[in-house]
Amino acid sequence: MPLPQPDLPEPAHPDIDSMLSRKFGKEIANYFSGSPLNRVSFLRPDHAFLSLALKHPSTSFLLFNKTEPLIKSPTELAYAKFKDVQPVIGNDPFEKSEEDQIKEYNSVAYTPQLVFLGLDESKEGLIYKEYYKGQPYFALDITPKESVTEAAEKLIKDVEGQGMSFSRGRMHLSLPAQEAAIYAEARHLLDWNARNPFCAACGYPTLSVNAGFKRTCPPRDLAPMIKNTANTPDKPPCATRTGISNLSFPRTDPTVIMAVVSADGQKILLGRQKRWPPYWYSTLAGFLEPAESVEEAVRREVWEESGIHLGRVVIHSTQPWPYPANLMIGAIGQAIPGGEEIHLGHDAELDDAKWFTAEEVREALRVGTSGLGEGPGPEYKEGGLRLPPKTAIANQLMSAVVGGFVSGMPMI
Amino acid sequence: MPLPQPDLPEPAHPDIDSMLSRKFGKEIANYFSGSPLNRVSFLRPDHAFLSLALKHPSTSFLLFNKTEPLIKSPTELAYAKFKDVQPVIGNDPFEKSEEDQIKEYNSVAYTPQLVFLGLDESKEGLIYKEYYKGQPYFALDITPKESVTEAAEKLIKDVEGQGMSFSRGRMHLSLPAQEAAIYAEARHLLDWNARNPFCAACGYPTLSVNAGFKRTCPPRDLAPMIKNTANTPDKPPCATRTGISNLSFPRTDPTVIMAVVSADGQKILLGRQKRWPPYWYSTLAGFLEPAESVEEAVRREVWEESGIHLGRVVIHSTQPWPYPANLMIGAIGQAIPGGEEIHLGHDAELDDAKWFTAEEVREALRVGTSGLGEGPGPEYKEGGLRLPPKTAIANQLMSAVVGGFVSGMPMI
Repeated sequence: MPLPQPDLPEPAHPDIDSMLSRKFGKEIANYFSGSPLNRVSFLRPDHAFLSLALKHPSTSFLLFNKTEPLIKSPTELAYAKFKDVQPVIGNDPFEKSEEDQIKEYNSVAYTPQLVFLGLDESKEGLIYKEYYKGQPYFALDITPKESVTEAAEKLIKDVEGQGMSFSRGRMHLSLPAQEAAIYAEARHLLDWNARNPFCAACGYPTLSVNAGFKRTCPPRDLAPMIKNTANTPDKPPCATRTGISNLSFPRTDPTVIMAVVSADGQKILLGRQKRWPPYWYSTLAGFLEPAESVEEAVRREVWEESGIHLGRVVIHSTQPWPYPANLMIGAIGQAIPGGEEIHLGHDAELDDAKWFTAEEVREALRVGTSGLGEGPGPEYKEGGLRLPPKTAIANQLMSAVVGGFVSGMPMI
Repeated sequence: MPLPQPDLPEPAHPDIDSMLSRKFGKEIANYFSGSPLNRVSFLRPDHAFLSLALKHPSTSFLLFNKTEPLIKSPTELAYAKFKDVQPVIGNDPFEKSEEDQIKEYNSVAYTPQLVFLGLDESKEGLIYKEYYKGQPYFALDITPKESVTEAAEKLIKDVEGQGMSFSRGRMHLSLPAQEAAIYAEARHLLDWNARNPFCAACGYPTLSVNAGFKRTCPPRDLAPMIKNTANTPDKPPCATRTGISNLSFPRTDPTVIMAVVSADGQKILLGRQKRWPPYWYSTLAGFLEPAESVEEAVRREVWEESGIHLGRVVIHSTQPWPYPANLMIGAIGQAIPGGEEIHLGHDAELDDAKWFTAEEVREALRVGTSGLGEGPGPEYKEGGLRLPPKTAIANQLMSAVVGGFVSGMPMI
């Protein structure tokens, strides 16, 4: 028997519904998910593959200046070609095996961060070892610095001369869903590499390997300043070199975000932060802590922030959130009878928390949604509830609740 | 309307079912979740609270030697009292505010890692600011080293003389559910602190604050070796000191684990690793990558490891897994028609992967489950399928599938 088919909530983005129907059948999908790329993660240590992918004429490079991607317009990413980026990255940063790169490691040498994002199998491109086909995508940090300052500045001037620009601001919520997912992968990986130049276990500099998906702590460093009293480049032992260490791999922080319903299922709890516009509320959220299940983290966060005691919690859907490294796990929780009194004094994170009726939330989902910096729609009346847009999982959770999730519709 | 009440799958541990019914109503719970402690996370920066909790006569200290906890028996943790640990930690490590500790930071001084785990509100104990009551729990690393070697060795000799011991081996799966959850919190936090003595952003040593839940990179270090050419203890600027940095907080790695059913819902895909005993299989699993939704990570891992193409994926339940820092996110996925051919050659992690009938899995769940190091039950016949025990989320996922999850029973 097939899994039962639910009605999808309204799609997070006009593209997502049709894309998912095409690729995966029906499923709850959130913005920043739905990447068209096959990451072929097992090919990342294969420098021969990476070399071919890098130089293939079909290959696309998503360029970042600091944390901002190159765009054609707010609704379209721009991509460079190998010949454009060659002056910045050189002829072939994947010419040598990882083994040789580790042997010859010199922490003083600057290498612009390059990340292999995956293959778009829907497009003509590279063919490798029979199974792996498609147009390769890379992300590249061209922030002008150190030895590449001049080449990077020239590249930036060139692309800006062609009408492209580096986006401004933190959010990129007007990109089509597939482009948003490519951007999210690129941003998360470039940011992780930039934040972690040193080994947390021994304090020495680390080297990017696995095409941007791993940082290794080499046993030697040819940089003159590292040389020890014996005048060799050998470094002290490091725990990350014995066995597999999670510190060598990108970090993703699990975060819980939850629509809280009252014990009778008739009301929804929302909260607001002081810096938000008047009348703007959203679902509660917070980081999952060590050795908590998602369900426990939801109950703890809701009690700490609002004083509400939750009973059952069910997981609804998830959303990658690359600011800088979150996995949002969306849940719906139900207050226990007698546990609905609001108390903001435990962890004073919220400016306010309030119970709203399903009707108030339904109306606000219709007329009062927008990004934080934008105005609400034309039908919105001053003083009415304002809510986050469809690209936010908070909106999807509230839509699920008012759409009948709590009343017993099967989750899938 | 209340959320509909499901039948629970068999409980992960005899204790879990009754505990959850009592505390939260019915919900799918996995081993290592279900902690009786209120973490009161917002009190961690409050050194006056921590001082009171530390010295309260009711307070329990879970001691670790390296990564092993003190136990009375394989089914019972042992706890020490303040007077036992005082020779190791001194009279009051929380005497000074965090602000003062940061000002006086000296990276050469060794401080045994202490973690505030929470309050057991079901027991008589401390009362603080009206709302916060219960018996305080701490974890303490008493591995004999540096300045505490002698005091720690004496404490270890004392407790061992009283018949207690430090457990051996990686798993603690015979502890009652609530004790297992306390152990998991302690182990995850002690391990994280031990693995991360240096700042990944600047390479300098970091200081444990927030009662073990944060590591901060102090702007000064009185250790003689840190002094710069101007002979002041000031360190270079560090990105973790401007704004909030995720690197300062404990790391938890989201992991996906999934029961895969065939397109017609009649078969279950299981895989095995070479080092496992003969006939032993389990569900596939792997780390979630940056900027993936859980659903995408499940599809990627299943294709990379087995060649199977999945359609819809739904999340079932979650499990903390403190070896060293995982959040297991359990899911059920369905192969697409025509996508069921097994190919192990992409990412060669598995020794084998195979489709089993629901009947084979149901029978193995009845007679063939055990921990990896143990033998199967008395009814097991040589050559039959062997599976992980109920404490593993893999077992819960398979039980859910053969118990009707796929046939359309509401998830909650």
